[in-house]
Amino acid sequence: MNYGKIDIEIIEKLIEICGEGDVIYKDEEKLENYACDESGKIFCNPPEVVVKPENTGEVSKIMKLANVYHIPVTPRGAGSGLAGAAIPLYGGIVISMEKMNRILEIDKTNRVAVVEPGVITNDLCRKVEEEGLYYAGYPMSVGLSSIGGNVATNAGGSKVIKYGSTRKHVLGAEVVLPTGEVLNLGGKRRKETWGYDLLDLLIGSEGTLCIFTKLILNLLPLPKGTVDLLVPFRNIEEAIEAVKALFLEAKVLPTAIEFMDKTSVDIASQFLNFSLPLQGNAQAFLIIQIEERSKKELEEAYEKVGKSCLKNKALDVFVADNKTNSEKIWRIRRELTEALRNKDPFVSLSGDIIVPVSEIPIMLKKIKEVEKKYSVKTATIGHMGDGNLHPALFKPKDVSPEDWISLSEKIVEELIEEAIKLGGSGSGEHGVGLLKRKTFLKTKPSTEIRIMREIKRIFDPNMILNPGKVI
Amino acid sequence: MNYGKIDIEIIEKLIEICGEGDVIYKDEEKLENYACDESGKIFCNPPEVVVKPENTGEVSKIMKLANVYHIPVTPRGAGSGLAGAAIPLYGGIVISMEKMNRILEIDKTNRVAVVEPGVITNDLCRKVEEEGLYYAGYPMSVGLSSIGGNVATNAGGSKVIKYGSTRKHVLGAEVVLPTGEVLNLGGKRRKETWGYDLLDLLIGSEGTLCIFTKLILNLLPLPKGTVDLLVPFRNIEEAIEAVKALFLEAKVLPTAIEFMDKTSVDIASQFLNFSLPLQGNAQAFLIIQIEERSKKELEEAYEKVGKSCLKNKALDVFVADNKTNSEKIWRIRRELTEALRNKDPFVSLSGDIIVPVSEIPIMLKKIKEVEKKYSVKTATIGHMGDGNLHPALFKPKDVSPEDWISLSEKIVEELIEEAIKLGGSGSGEHGVGLLKRKTFLKTKPSTEIRIMREIKRIFDPNMILNPGKVI
Repeated sequence: MNYGKIDIEIIEKLIEICGEGDVIYKDEEKLENYACDESGKIFCNPPEVVVKPENTGEVSKIMKLANVYHIPVTPRGAGSGLAGAAIPLYGGIVISMEKMNRILEIDKTNRVAVVEPGVITNDLCRKVEEEGLYYAGYPMSVGLSSIGGNVATNAGGSKVIKYGSTRKHVLGAEVVLPTGEVLNLGGKRRKETWGYDLLDLLIGSEGTLCIFTKLILNLLPLPKGTVDLLVPFRNIEEAIEAVKALFLEAKVLPTAIEFMDKTSVDIASQFLNFSLPLQGNAQAFLIIQIEERSKKELEEAYEKVGKSCLKNKALDVFVADNKTNSEKIWRIRRELTEALRNKDPFVSLSGDIIVPVSEIPIMLKKIKEVEKKYSVKTATIGHMGDGNLHPALFKPKDVSPEDWISLSEKIVEELIEEAIKLGGSGSGEHGVGLLKRKTFLKTKPSTEIRIMREIKRIFDPNMILNPGKVI
Repeated sequence: MNYGKIDIEIIEKLIEICGEGDVIYKDEEKLENYACDESGKIFCNPPEVVVKPENTGEVSKIMKLANVYHIPVTPRGAGSGLAGAAIPLYGGIVISMEKMNRILEIDKTNRVAVVEPGVITNDLCRKVEEEGLYYAGYPMSVGLSSIGGNVATNAGGSKVIKYGSTRKHVLGAEVVLPTGEVLNLGGKRRKETWGYDLLDLLIGSEGTLCIFTKLILNLLPLPKGTVDLLVPFRNIEEAIEAVKALFLEAKVLPTAIEFMDKTSVDIASQFLNFSLPLQGNAQAFLIIQIEERSKKELEEAYEKVGKSCLKNKALDVFVADNKTNSEKIWRIRRELTEALRNKDPFVSLSGDIIVPVSEIPIMLKKIKEVEKKYSVKTATIGHMGDGNLHPALFKPKDVSPEDWISLSEKIVEELIEEAIKLGGSGSGEHGVGLLKRKTFLKTKPSTEIRIMREIKRIFDPNMILNPGKVI
């Protein structure tokens, strides 16, 4: 692509739009903060300039400017992505949404929250809880990631089985198109058939079709109680059978069924310096979270789940019905990324395959095969209830960081091809971004690629928004 | 549009594709059966030929043929639509999906059903119930409409507050494009971020972008019990206040909150020849349905709801906890369309506005204003929980059927404009189709119209699929 360069004229115009304090340029150290996301230090590239708009009007003006001068623009939420979508591959402008972080309204009558995209997900969750309401989006990075990023990647997380991924919670959005035009899609309503569904088309488009500047989010009545069960199993196969039985026999829909293999648990527990019960005997752990509207219902539900697990060969069932114990269990899962990075700074975390639940055993077998074939150690965690697995790959000592980029990419591609063969897909929740683009373009049917490319052209005729990502 | 004509050569080719028995032509009486939908006899137009493909390959061949010869094709489900989307405005070919009506698989492990589009919604509901599972889509026309039609219009219905409209239940689809190309989108999985969301773009596109030939649908654990409450109120305002309190105080998420005004109830009860309790005193009725997983939870929930309603000025609360009583209540609502038609064959049923729940009182006031302004009697029902109102308009005796088309269209347009002003939309669940196209094009922002038109061109370069609808 032949892009325009950032010169002093552009900088001056950006300052005119956003104000001097909201434009970063020349300061290499500060620009470096916008060079990477959480996919690892080896994929970084710094922008030439960072702007921090404070309202929709500014975002629109920035896009109009960039569109006229053909300057690449990369939108950025909290930078917690794992697929490289927020990395400014061609330099240019990074639009950081960090200053558009207000909760504009919690509308109890219509059960919606209206927020700016920079709001940190967990801040929203806590704020609406104070009002007796519940936001059901819950990526594992809930304390780091922003709502705008969640929407741009259609983030999943641990509560998808019960509540669906981020898409299901978005009722409306204000967006700025690459041309600077502003659209208002959807609204404070839960259904609509009034023309083509542009809102869902934009959700999950990873910052390549638009920039979200305002979001209208669905809220639910707040569940009255939460219980977390920690359930160790002798092996992975037995854990999977127990999950199947949960749906079919106990007929309970838990909020979360998280899976961790022994390697993951060992690494996390070492990092956090505490161990889980039966850690020595179990090859697989499930964390099952149940949320209900009353104490009575909660007790009934978790007894059902516990009994069902024990009947299906769980080694034991540990019930955490207070915050301290729950926190302990979830820390192992939530801080795993950091623990994995601490063990190996080059660990590849881009694996995010999804398969039908029935195919999880075959997929896990494939991961073990790959481990042997390439002599690469793996640690696998996943959202068991929806077949979404995250196999982490550790760099072997004798492989150079440069070779590791291509080797790990090759392995992830092999796993993705298997997932697709099993009726699954290449990414459950992280997205295509930069890291999986090659595999995506290789594995998607050509008709779909053609349609997506033409859609991209409709929204972004000059191809300036987040170039080099997805399509 | 300059379309190709159906001649004997085309007919022969269609017979070659589908077999003689699955092609209707010349027989005017039979063709007439495919001329209308449920929007009324005044909007009909017969096709030149009807084909009834039995598999995806046939659908693809028909589309390829039509695309080469520029023949308009109108896809048709069960013909129960209320917006005219299935009416073959330009003649040409109607593809009726009636013979592709098999339930291909109920996969309990992955909790999905794989079905052909011609399956009648209620047949699917009953079939999966036998397996202890639950399909949560439930348009009011559940006994008539087909799954394919539900998906094409993103049908709503009475269970949207709890489970969402049809879109939320579709995990995957096989579709045939106007070019005859076949795409497989989504699959047996509940989340994905792997390129742009073409599946949701196609859902609700009212047969203008593709023909659905196979659907993968989400199933839930079957609720253990259902209770229906019939709750009369002195006036509409009090009914609305009670609904607000349900969410905010009782914190229960009912499956359905249906609203009927006095006129609707009177017409339906006269037609069905039975009356509801307190029918004389009440200006507004709610039907509240609650579904829970156990008897205990169910009792708890409906006591909460009942108490909350009584506290909020309900005249009484009648509990129907057996099939006979429930059926009696729901018949009034379900057979209302027929009752309205019986009263006035020219009744306009295209009103399908949706507003934020908080704006229902203003919208209802607007309906009453319009009633006076145009001296047109109305009867309003609606899905109260999601702000979707269906005002039926009766033709005044002194207005001719021809004038009534334009007068009723004008009134509906005025209501739609008000709904949009209130943060709502022109259609909650019926769609744009043919009847609301003019208003749709007039009220949608031009940027959206441009994008939708370009999307239409990507999928349908020769503009042969369902021309004259939506966009």
